[in-house]
Amino acid sequence: MRPYSCMNTDELASEYHKVLSDFHRCKAQGLNLNMARGKPSKKQLNLVSGILTSLVASEDCFDGDIDARNYGELAGLPCARAYWADILDCKPEQVFVGGAASLNMMCDIVSRAFTHGLLHSPRPWCQEEKIKFLCPAPGYDRHFQIGEFYGAELITIPMTPEGPDMDMVEEYVKDPAVKMIWVVPKYSNPDGIIFSDEVIQRFAHLKPAAPDFAIIWDNAYGVHEFKGDYVPFPDILSICEKAGNPDMVYEFASTSKITFAGGGISCMAASVANINFFTGVFGVQMISYDKVNQLRHVRFLQNKAHTLGIMKLHASVMAPKFEVVSRYLNEQIAPLGFAHWNDPKGGYFVSLFTMPGTARRVWQLCKEAGVTLTNAGATYPYGNDPQDSNLRIAPSLPPVEELEKAMEVLCTCLKLAALEKLQNH
Amino acid sequence: MRPYSCMNTDELASEYHKVLSDFHRCKAQGLNLNMARGKPSKKQLNLVSGILTSLVASEDCFDGDIDARNYGELAGLPCARAYWADILDCKPEQVFVGGAASLNMMCDIVSRAFTHGLLHSPRPWCQEEKIKFLCPAPGYDRHFQIGEFYGAELITIPMTPEGPDMDMVEEYVKDPAVKMIWVVPKYSNPDGIIFSDEVIQRFAHLKPAAPDFAIIWDNAYGVHEFKGDYVPFPDILSICEKAGNPDMVYEFASTSKITFAGGGISCMAASVANINFFTGVFGVQMISYDKVNQLRHVRFLQNKAHTLGIMKLHASVMAPKFEVVSRYLNEQIAPLGFAHWNDPKGGYFVSLFTMPGTARRVWQLCKEAGVTLTNAGATYPYGNDPQDSNLRIAPSLPPVEELEKAMEVLCTCLKLAALEKLQNH
Repeated sequence: MRPYSCMNTDELASEYHKVLSDFHRCKAQGLNLNMARGKPSKKQLNLVSGILTSLVASEDCFDGDIDARNYGELAGLPCARAYWADILDCKPEQVFVGGAASLNMMCDIVSRAFTHGLLHSPRPWCQEEKIKFLCPAPGYDRHFQIGEFYGAELITIPMTPEGPDMDMVEEYVKDPAVKMIWVVPKYSNPDGIIFSDEVIQRFAHLKPAAPDFAIIWDNAYGVHEFKGDYVPFPDILSICEKAGNPDMVYEFASTSKITFAGGGISCMAASVANINFFTGVFGVQMISYDKVNQLRHVRFLQNKAHTLGIMKLHASVMAPKFEVVSRYLNEQIAPLGFAHWNDPKGGYFVSLFTMPGTARRVWQLCKEAGVTLTNAGATYPYGNDPQDSNLRIAPSLPPVEELEKAMEVLCTCLKLAALEKLQNH
Repeated sequence: MRPYSCMNTDELASEYHKVLSDFHRCKAQGLNLNMARGKPSKKQLNLVSGILTSLVASEDCFDGDIDARNYGELAGLPCARAYWADILDCKPEQVFVGGAASLNMMCDIVSRAFTHGLLHSPRPWCQEEKIKFLCPAPGYDRHFQIGEFYGAELITIPMTPEGPDMDMVEEYVKDPAVKMIWVVPKYSNPDGIIFSDEVIQRFAHLKPAAPDFAIIWDNAYGVHEFKGDYVPFPDILSICEKAGNPDMVYEFASTSKITFAGGGISCMAASVANINFFTGVFGVQMISYDKVNQLRHVRFLQNKAHTLGIMKLHASVMAPKFEVVSRYLNEQIAPLGFAHWNDPKGGYFVSLFTMPGTARRVWQLCKEAGVTLTNAGATYPYGNDPQDSNLRIAPSLPPVEELEKAMEVLCTCLKLAALEKLQNH
């Protein structure tokens, strides 16, 4: 195998015909495989189903004197606030424990910002001429969608191996219309990047023109190593506080990929001033979130140390899948020299950069051959990848045997699209 | 005992001194009792705690092929949609099953109406000059708060024994700024009124000027009889459809007072067009709601017939408490002729009308004597009861022995406030 860039026209033509017939063989299998979303596998869900019996009788339902089965404690059960504080290395009073989805809380924050404003907003955002969100990309499509839904202008910030391009971020926040930046700081979605200490410090020391500029710090994969040991990660709240920006950051986390996807508990961690402000705001829409599920989770997950043990169980299922992805790409694609990808130690994704101008075509070819990938472009604001190059591979859901078939298809489609491009088909 | 209105000045003075000393005796007990919120009692919560073990193993977590532990099925598990359709007598495709709180979904509807508009909105409500909500009162304070939070003008509609004054409603909806009416149609909060067939038909046949006028039909107590048998109640969706207004009504229900308060499941029932519209809208904020809890509920509650059986268990705890309220008021207050109240067969409240001009004073006296009631005025928009007369009694939480003490205090305070008023103290 030689890099495509070293092949002459005849060699490319011969390779094309070989790959095309591979593709037809793939198609003939009539596969129906899905690597589109970061869903845990059935095996993972079975490993944590002990949570179903962590509360079985009435007397199990108390956190001290508080009956988890009744209304009250809008900001969350004390034990659940303490649990998240342990996970995130912050203080319980900085934690608001919500329902099953942290995404819902993020959306609530944006929604209330538009209709009422945040803690330091001079006015509701709907009364501003223009609102802009900074979107490091490749990034998480659902973050972008919330911004787009509320009519914010989405500005793409390139990712570096250390995190977002902070020179650009520092420059953009001088514009008072720039109100938010959305990031996944540990095992970023999809690149799997852990923000460096310098990047984190530069975030905390931002000097935004907007008094209500907000960092949405979506710490979705904070304990989600699948390879090697837990990687400690600094508490953004105390760093922002030390930098004189205590109210600038809203951190989110959930157990959606610790226990059940969509059936877990979520939290927002922020300054006490912000927690008090949003407890007032959320008090309009809620009497209290599902504290029975909060207590169920605390009993099952116990604390950070025990949770990290459970994450080792997930890792035992996840790691072999990422190894399959890695092996196929390294063996079949690396020698051809036209694509590159990351090799994360945690999170849920592999970020694959195809030959520029071919990502959409690869997606389409995979679809034809029965393999569904996350939409090409989804990792960029407005679904617009300027290079048409990034694909997010989500290997967690299919069993290893299926994943191998899917990777065989993907590698074939990567080659076919590259060869089409090189031959100007 | 004679009506206060028949007493002369001396008799009133003597009665006043007697009641004042009763009040001091009450105060001396140092009570700390709460009849403020419609919270189920510990006894009720224990009766339904079997739900904790309705799912205990991985293999229990499937609704057909759907794994409730993973993402998907934004509009709810099929079995949960079917469950609510059975309860509400509508079709499963007219049901969206949400998280733990129906209030949260109501607030989401209002929030999205302001930022984006409803299905038939010409523009987002935040772009309208003025928005008005019709608020039958006495009503539910949390309904009013949502309207107030979003800056809607709240218009009080008097309640009649049949439901809201429909002459006024029909008149007000001619104003295109009137966008919503909020009602609890069965065992209304707090009056315990069941809307008559005529009122329901007039709702369905409203001819509002606003093309996006919405009825928030908060069917919170649809199966919540505590006295006598289940009272069938018509399906508002099909009635609105027949009246040519299929998209005008949004019905809500939850299990907050069937299983656990704040730990149940909720639903919105509406036309298929509205369900499709809001599934799109909610898809921005959510991947999927907690389907594990949905399945847990369906397994435990099964269907309407079985749920009505469970409601009989609740009734066995609730009925004696409402009997205490009734007995105290009938024995101690009725003969005095200055107050009246309802005698509901379901729901969670007794609506008490004190001597006009004394509700706030009664609340304050109760507070001094260690009994917390829902704030006087809370049952009216802006907390402003024009008669200063209505108090919402919520007897569900305290055990019977405590409730008797609380009612003794309340009766004493009712008398004292009336006597103060009559003597112009």
